Amino acid sequence: MSPASPIPAYLIDRFNGWKRVKFEDSKAWYARLMEDGQRPRTMLISCCDSRLDTVAMFGAEPGDLFVVRNVANLVPPYAPDQDHHGTSAAVEYAVTALHVAHILIVGHSKCGGVQACHDMCSGAAPELDESTSFVGRWMDILRPGYERVKDKHWDRDDALRELEHEAVRTSLMNLASFPFVQDALDAGRLTLHGAWIDIAGGEMHTLSEDGVFTAN
Amino acid sequence: MSPASPIPAYLIDRFNGWKRVKFEDSKAWYARLMEDGQRPRTMLISCCDSRLDTVAMFGAEPGDLFVVRNVANLVPPYAPDQDHHGTSAAVEYAVTALHVAHILIVGHSKCGGVQACHDMCSGAAPELDESTSFVGRWMDILRPGYERVKDKHWDRDDALRELEHEAVRTSLMNLASFPFVQDALDAGRLTLHGAWIDIAGGEMHTLSEDGVFTAN
Amino acid sequence: MSPASPIPAYLIDRFNGWKRVKFEDSKAWYARLMEDGQRPRTMLISCCDSRLDTVAMFGAEPGDLFVVRNVANLVPPYAPDQDHHGTSAAVEYAVTALHVAHILIVGHSKCGGVQACHDMCSGAAPELDESTSFVGRWMDILRPGYERVKDKHWDRDDALRELEHEAVRTSLMNLASFPFVQDALDAGRLTLHGAWIDIAGGEMHTLSEDGVFTAN
Amino acid sequence: MSPASPIPAYLIDRFNGWKRVKFEDSKAWYARLMEDGQRPRTMLISCCDSRLDTVAMFGAEPGDLFVVRNVANLVPPYAPDQDHHGTSAAVEYAVTALHVAHILIVGHSKCGGVQACHDMCSGAAPELDESTSFVGRWMDILRPGYERVKDKHWDRDDALRELEHEAVRTSLMNLASFPFVQDALDAGRLTLHGAWIDIAGGEMHTLSEDGVFTAN
Repeated sequence: MSPASPIPAYLIDRFNGWKRVKFEDSKAWYARLMEDGQRPRTMLISCCDSRLDTVAMFGAEPGDLFVVRNVANLVPPYAPDQDHHGTSAAVEYAVTALHVAHILIVGHSKCGGVQACHDMCSGAAPELDESTSFVGRWMDILRPGYERVKDKHWDRDDALRELEHEAVRTSLMNLASFPFVQDALDAGRLTLHGAWIDIAGGEMHTLSEDGVFTAN
Repeated sequence: MSPASPIPAYLIDRFNGWKRVKFEDSKAWYARLMEDGQRPRTMLISCCDSRLDTVAMFGAEPGDLFVVRNVANLVPPYAPDQDHHGTSAAVEYAVTALHVAHILIVGHSKCGGVQACHDMCSGAAPELDESTSFVGRWMDILRPGYERVKDKHWDRDDALRELEHEAVRTSLMNLASFPFVQDALDAGRLTLHGAWIDIAGGEMHTLSEDGVFTAN
Repeated sequence: MSPASPIPAYLIDRFNGWKRVKFEDSKAWYARLMEDGQRPRTMLISCCDSRLDTVAMFGAEPGDLFVVRNVANLVPPYAPDQDHHGTSAAVEYAVTALHVAHILIVGHSKCGGVQACHDMCSGAAPELDESTSFVGRWMDILRPGYERVKDKHWDRDDALRELEHEAVRTSLMNLASFPFVQDALDAGRLTLHGAWIDIAGGEMHTLSEDGVFTAN
Repeated sequence: MSPASPIPAYLIDRFNGWKRVKFEDSKAWYARLMEDGQRPRTMLISCCDSRLDTVAMFGAEPGDLFVVRNVANLVPPYAPDQDHHGTSAAVEYAVTALHVAHILIVGHSKCGGVQACHDMCSGAAPELDESTSFVGRWMDILRPGYERVKDKHWDRDDALRELEHEAVRTSLMNLASFPFVQDALDAGRLTLHGAWIDIAGGEMHTLSEDGVFTAN
């Protein structure tokens, strides 16, 4: 027995449309990718947000990008505690099995997860502080970021944008705390990168080595 | 200071291409989505695999799909233990904040995560049993699935495909163990679905209510 | 010069999907329909509302339904005043050129046009009373209906549903005021029908000869 | 009393089939759409022709497309004269209340309304010139288009196709004459688009910014 219902017809219809048009077009490449295995150049960590199709935004083709999508594009700190760590597992697989050359963290404007973090940390959303809140406990990863930036802005929009930037910086610092990531960095086999996308304007800001976001 | 290097130029170039062509085309829609917020109909949980662009496969446009991508498209069991649970947080946000109408788990052929699970459980990859292996501890979620199917197939390819199917079934059962998911199911506000995609052939098999995968 | 921008790519993609899957399937029938002309059995007048795909709801295939969609599924009174009357033109074409056998008016729950009419007539939306409001002037067609039902219900939801029903009744009475419709009715070549669909429940209520809506 | 007869059984049967199969499938989404209201991305203006199911052609799901269907997919010129203007009301509602991001006018091959216009303007159908002809007075909207193209083609089929294209161009120019459309265009909140579909071949031609139709 399964809690599954039949899949909505529209998803089958759209898949069939993809199959006849886009798959047909790339068939030989798919066949080769399946035979030889994937060999992505870059790992992307971006948000679940439905407005942000990062694969399309980076013009990626099948085989190009190994993609994690989670709430607020976060990487948790290194914690080998035998629990289920989905994002850490993906990073481990990308770095040690697939040997990706780059990891790019992509933040974005109007991030619901970051907003939840801001509200929780500023006391405006006590329900997120409850032990049973998965969103709250996940966004705890960004608490140190909130502490770093909380006194910098009085305007809520500015504060949220700053915290979106901080989510990218925090994830990069956490990434660098994984021993196998550090090894790959040291060996020159891997580089880390950060970006933030303003969805309304279609603008990408990238993170410099001294931690500043600037428009391209 | 940040561990970030300047972003590789090819990603900027491709983003700029996207911006001039695809973004330009959908500008008015992006503006509206940012103003009014997202309202995705469906949540998709699929694998990080670079060969599987599920957003494109389902012909989805900005705003259509709320997407989690993790290794082997797994949902862990309900465990409100105050740890960082990225996938559970995304499910909670999708169901309780965004009120998605459907959650679709999408498995796929030649899944590296499932293969790792098979090797670990069958004793062929002792390094994944180590406490420090994030991939091993993440794939523990599928151990009960391995136990259920291990005696069914002698052929490795068949066994792997069966385990890929089991990953979808396990995730659906785990999903149904979340109280807020169960509430939404009971209220008729949510339905759960499973599918498995054979990438080489561009075929989708969907999961029926009695737990069987069949081609469409 | 044209005020047109290039068509959004997603519409082309989805059209191409339709073409490869659905059109392919019905090609021979389309060819014949184009050669011999359309011969629809029924004319449908329904609302523009994006939630109400009446062609699909009545399982209609190419050639089956001649369809008008306007705000609140209204037919204006017979008024041969040389102005541009889109709906009246469609009715004339359907009855005198295509000789449809039935005209079905389909109302629906939570109709935005009906709600606008209710607010306008009850004084809650003075902007709709302005001479420049196209929505207001179009919904004037339903003013007599509002007058008939306004004292029947105190509850807003009940009042709106009653007015949605009245929109169907009004349109049917207006239809019957067209001389060529009356001629076709008299000759037994045409019948008129009314229905109302509760979208949330997927229920259709149909209008009886004595003017009452009942569930099927 | 009502001029309504009982609804033909075949329509009830097909509706019930839709309900058990398609509605069942999308129930949770319908419930949400009714609770939260519609938020269509695109408004479609297409013809009543029974051979042209534009909602299916664009793979649209409930909530995707706000649809006007009238004879020959025409938008009349801006005329706030207090008469009942169904299409203008729909445009006003779509732009000012629903804030659609795109309006697409879809013309098509073998359009009966366009043919009537051609015959009327070329003197072959004097009955359409009569003041009581609703089809004639509605197709007057396309008279300026006929004047522009009448000397371009000697072959009737070519002339009709040209006039079908002109119907799309005329509607777009008329659309742009509505002040609230112009405001939304100026603000970058709306874009206008034109297409023409050859039903027999399943081909879509789209209108470029310099007013030319080309195959995709």
